[in-house]
Amino acid sequence: MTLFEKHQALIEQAIEAGKTRNFWTPYPENPKAYGEGMDEAGKTAFSAQMTHDFKELLQEGNAWVGEEFSPYLQLGIGVKYPQSDNETIIARANKAQQQWGKTDIKTRAGLLVESLERVKGRFFEIAYATMHTTGQAYMMSFQASGPHANDRALEAIAIGYQQLTSITPNATWTKPMGKFDLTLQKNFKAMPKGISLVIGCSTFPIWNTVPGLYADLICGNVCIVKPHPKAILPIAIVVAEIQKLFKENGIDPMVVQLAVDTVDNQITKQLAEHRDVKLIDFTGSSAFGDYIESIPHKTAFTEKAGVNCVILDSVKDIKAVAGNIAFSASLYSGQMCTAPQNIYIPETGINTTEGHLSYDDAKNALVQAITDLAENPKMGPHILGAIQSEATLQRLQNAGSLGGNLLLAGKGVVNPEFEHARVFSPAVIELTSADENIYKKECFGPIVFIIKTKDTEESLSITKKLSAEIGAITCLAFSTNTDTMQHIEDSMNQVYTPVSFNLGGAAFVNSHAAFSDFHVTGGNPAGNASFTNSEYISKRFVWVGNRMME
Amino acid sequence: MTLFEKHQALIEQAIEAGKTRNFWTPYPENPKAYGEGMDEAGKTAFSAQMTHDFKELLQEGNAWVGEEFSPYLQLGIGVKYPQSDNETIIARANKAQQQWGKTDIKTRAGLLVESLERVKGRFFEIAYATMHTTGQAYMMSFQASGPHANDRALEAIAIGYQQLTSITPNATWTKPMGKFDLTLQKNFKAMPKGISLVIGCSTFPIWNTVPGLYADLICGNVCIVKPHPKAILPIAIVVAEIQKLFKENGIDPMVVQLAVDTVDNQITKQLAEHRDVKLIDFTGSSAFGDYIESIPHKTAFTEKAGVNCVILDSVKDIKAVAGNIAFSASLYSGQMCTAPQNIYIPETGINTTEGHLSYDDAKNALVQAITDLAENPKMGPHILGAIQSEATLQRLQNAGSLGGNLLLAGKGVVNPEFEHARVFSPAVIELTSADENIYKKECFGPIVFIIKTKDTEESLSITKKLSAEIGAITCLAFSTNTDTMQHIEDSMNQVYTPVSFNLGGAAFVNSHAAFSDFHVTGGNPAGNASFTNSEYISKRFVWVGNRMME
Repeated sequence: MTLFEKHQALIEQAIEAGKTRNFWTPYPENPKAYGEGMDEAGKTAFSAQMTHDFKELLQEGNAWVGEEFSPYLQLGIGVKYPQSDNETIIARANKAQQQWGKTDIKTRAGLLVESLERVKGRFFEIAYATMHTTGQAYMMSFQASGPHANDRALEAIAIGYQQLTSITPNATWTKPMGKFDLTLQKNFKAMPKGISLVIGCSTFPIWNTVPGLYADLICGNVCIVKPHPKAILPIAIVVAEIQKLFKENGIDPMVVQLAVDTVDNQITKQLAEHRDVKLIDFTGSSAFGDYIESIPHKTAFTEKAGVNCVILDSVKDIKAVAGNIAFSASLYSGQMCTAPQNIYIPETGINTTEGHLSYDDAKNALVQAITDLAENPKMGPHILGAIQSEATLQRLQNAGSLGGNLLLAGKGVVNPEFEHARVFSPAVIELTSADENIYKKECFGPIVFIIKTKDTEESLSITKKLSAEIGAITCLAFSTNTDTMQHIEDSMNQVYTPVSFNLGGAAFVNSHAAFSDFHVTGGNPAGNASFTNSEYISKRFVWVGNRMME
Repeated sequence: MTLFEKHQALIEQAIEAGKTRNFWTPYPENPKAYGEGMDEAGKTAFSAQMTHDFKELLQEGNAWVGEEFSPYLQLGIGVKYPQSDNETIIARANKAQQQWGKTDIKTRAGLLVESLERVKGRFFEIAYATMHTTGQAYMMSFQASGPHANDRALEAIAIGYQQLTSITPNATWTKPMGKFDLTLQKNFKAMPKGISLVIGCSTFPIWNTVPGLYADLICGNVCIVKPHPKAILPIAIVVAEIQKLFKENGIDPMVVQLAVDTVDNQITKQLAEHRDVKLIDFTGSSAFGDYIESIPHKTAFTEKAGVNCVILDSVKDIKAVAGNIAFSASLYSGQMCTAPQNIYIPETGINTTEGHLSYDDAKNALVQAITDLAENPKMGPHILGAIQSEATLQRLQNAGSLGGNLLLAGKGVVNPEFEHARVFSPAVIELTSADENIYKKECFGPIVFIIKTKDTEESLSITKKLSAEIGAITCLAFSTNTDTMQHIEDSMNQVYTPVSFNLGGAAFVNSHAAFSDFHVTGGNPAGNASFTNSEYISKRFVWVGNRMME
C-alpha cells in the first residue's frame, strides 16, 4: 500500500469537510486522547533537549546558533541549530526542486500526510518547546502547535490535492470539422513556482507556519523555513520529522530546510529578495509585511497586524458577556492575532434581558471580569500564559502613558509552577470615540481599550473604518436585535471582516477552526491571504497545457 | 422558470468540460449554423449603424465621441458613443454595486448566460463591426468576436459559479466538548471586491474583453468597460445587450458601463488609478501592462506582449510543416498575441522522413510557403485580413532597416472586395543566434524572423530564455524524436510556456480553445493571468465567514 492509499480516505474527508464546514478534526485537541505517559515522555524529551544542540536535522551547517529564551523560566533554553550561508541553502533548495517538482501529486500528498502522523507522535515535546519559547500556557501550546496546526496543515494538503487534480492530466481533444475530425492529444500540468520561503513569528511558530509550508509542498515547491530567532525549536522538530521521512522514502530531505538566524544578524531580507525565491509566506508586523508584499516578482502571502473590535449593543446576560470578552482579551495575554483590543460601549448604556444597564455599569462589569479572571489562581496563569517578549512587557508597563483613563494597570500574576514567569494581568484604558489617535493602532499584547461611543451606529462606524484602514482579523458583536445584527454583519463584511455574534460558553472569538473558519480574509490590511481558500493554493503553481498532433 | 433554471444544464456542462478538457462548444463556429439570412441581416444592421450615433446604450452622456477607422475601407466608420466624465461613471457604478453585490449567485449566473444568448443573436453584426475596426478577415471576425468569445465568457461564468458555490452558504457547526456540545451557526459569503475596469485592445475588442467582464460580473462586481478608442463598436453592442437585459429584469443597467475615449484624450489611467476601482483587466503592451500591475491596492489581470517561437528540429513532411507555420504567421497579419515570430532552424539542417534537408532548403520552404499563401488570391486576403494600425504598417515597411538579411519584404495584397484595404504580405528576415538585439523583442504584426542556430539545443535555449525574460504565450515545435519532444516540453514548461507539437491540417498554434486550452499561463512576462484558471476568478472576490451563537 502506498502512503497515498494509506491516507486517501483522510484527504477525501478533509476535502468534504472544507465544503460542508461542519465540525471535523482528525487530530483531537484533548491531550488525554493521545494516551498514557505521552505527556511525561514529551516533557522528558524537551528537558533532555535543553542546553544541547539540536541534531535531528539532516542538513549540514557551518555554525551552531540559537538564542531562545523561556518566558516561564526567564532563562535561555540553550538549544543551538545548524546554520548555513544563504547561498548554500538556496543551492540545496534548487537541487531538491528538480526532484520534488517532478514527484507526482499522489506521492507528494501521501508523504505530506504521513509527515503529519510523525509530527503527531511528538505533539507533547512540541507543546513544551512552544511553552518555553512563546510563553503560551500549556493547553494552548499543546492545541495550537499540535492538533490545531496539524488540522491546518492537512487542510492545505487537501485543498491543494483537490486543485491539482481538478483538471484531467491527459485529454484526447477531437473537434468535428465536417468531413473529418481534428484530433489533438493534450496534457495539463500544474508546474510549481519554485523555491518558497516561510517566515515564522515569535508567538505561533507552528500554527502560523505550517499552512504555507504544506501549501508550498503539495504544489511541488521546495521550502525554506525561516523561524523567528526566539521561536525555533517547535518548528525545528516538524522540519526534522519531514526531512527524516523524506530520506526514508528516497526524496531529497532538503525539500524542506530550516534557516536559522539571530536577532542581531537576521537573514530574512536576503532570503526574501533572493532571485531564486519565488514564494514568500509571512506572519508578523504590518511594516515588514508591507515590505514583503512590495518585493518585485514574488508571490507573497501575508498576515499582518490589525485592530480587532468588540461592539456591545445589547446582551442577554452582561455577566456572561463580560466573562466571554475578558477571556478572549486575556487568553495568552492578548498576544493572539485574533484577540480583541477595542471594546465599544454606547454612552447611553446597553439593554439586557434584566433591564437597562448604564455605560458605567457595563464598563465596570468588563473590568471586573478581567480582574476576576486574572486573580483566580485556578484560571489566571493558565489563561494568561506568559509575555513572550520584553517589548510587549514594556508596552504593557507604559500603558498608563498612552492617554485616556487607566482603569486597570497590568499587574504581576503568580504562576505557582514557574516562580519567575513573566505573567501579567491586562491593562484596561478608558477612551472616548474622539481618542482615535490612541485606539487606531494595534497595541500588541494585554492592553484593552474601552471606548465610549455615542451609540451602536458610531461603534460600528469606527469598527468599519478601522477594519478598512488598519485591518482586522475578527470582530465580536453582542446584540439581541436581529436587524442590528444584520446591519453589523453587512457593514463589516463589506470591509471583508468576519463577525462573531453573541459568543458565550466555550465559544471565543479568538478560535478559528480548520475546515470551517477562514483565518484572515485577505480583503483588508490585516493580511493579503486566507487560511485556506483556493487562492492560497492556486497562486503557488501555474497550469501549463501542451498539445500534440499524432 | 428562472433564467438560472433555463441555463443550469449549460452551466453544468461547461463546468464538466473544464475538467475533462475534451472538445466542447455551445456556440458553433460555422456561420452557417446560425441560419439563413442572418449574415445579410447583420451586414445590413452594421451598414445602417455607420455614420450614426450608437444609441442602444442605456447610459447617458454629455458628449458624443468616436474615431474608429476601417482598415478595409480606409475610412472612418462615423459612429459616436455617449461619453460621461469619470466621476459620473464611478458614481453610477457605486450605486449599481449596492444592488449587484447583493444579487444572489443563481440570479447572476442566469442573467449572464442569458446575455450571451442575446449577444448570439447579433454575432453577424458584431462580425462586421469587428472587421471594420480591427482589420480581421470576415471568418476570424465572426468566430473570434462571436462564438469563441461567447465560449470564453461562458467559461468564466461556469468556473465562477463553481467557485462561488464550492462552500456551503450556511452550516451548523457542532463541536463535541465532552459533557456538552458547542454549537455555532455559520454563514459563508463570497463578497465582491467592487468596481472593476476592463481595458480592451484594438485587435480583439471582444475576445480579450469578455473573459474579464464576465468573471467580474459573476463574482458580483460591477464593471466599467474601457475599449480601445479604435475598436469600440463590437463591445458596445455587447454592453448594450447586457444593459437592456438587466433593465428588463429589474437590475440596474449601470452594472456594466461603456467608458469611451479618444486617442488624444485617454481616460484609462484616471479610471485605473481611481480609488474606487478595485479590479483591472488589461490586454495590450508590456509597458502599459507593467504600469497597470504596479498601481497599488488593485487586483490586476494582464495579457502583455511576448515573443512566440517555433523550433524546427525534424519533420515528417517539410511542405506541410512550412504551410502550417506560414498560415500561423500570416493569419491576421501576425496581429494575434499567439502568432509565431521567431523560427529557429539548425545550421546543419533538419531530418525529414524523405531524407535530410539543409538549412537553406528548410528556410526556402518556409519563405515559399509564406509567399504562396499571400499570393494565392483565394487564400491571401482571407487569411491576412488587414493591418489594424498605421503604426503596425510602418513597422512592416521599416522591417528592412531592422538588420539581418531581408528575405521577403511586405508587399501589398489585393482584396477584390475592398480595393483600398490595408493588406500586406509578411516580411521575413534572416538572422543568426547572435542577433539577439533584433529578435529579443516583440515586433507586433507581420514580421517573421528565421534564425539560424547551432542546433536544436541552442534553438531551445534561446526560446526558453526569451520566454523567461520577455514572455511567450505559445511555442510551436516540430520533432519526430520523442526524447527531443519530451526535452522541449520539460524545458519550456519550466518557464511556464505551453508547447504545441507537430501541428498540421487544421491545427494551428494560434488557436486556444475555450474549455480546453489555457490562454496565457500567467507564469511568464507575457501576462500575469490565464483564461481561465481558478485564480482568474478567485482574486475577484473575498470569502468572509460569520458565526453566531443562538
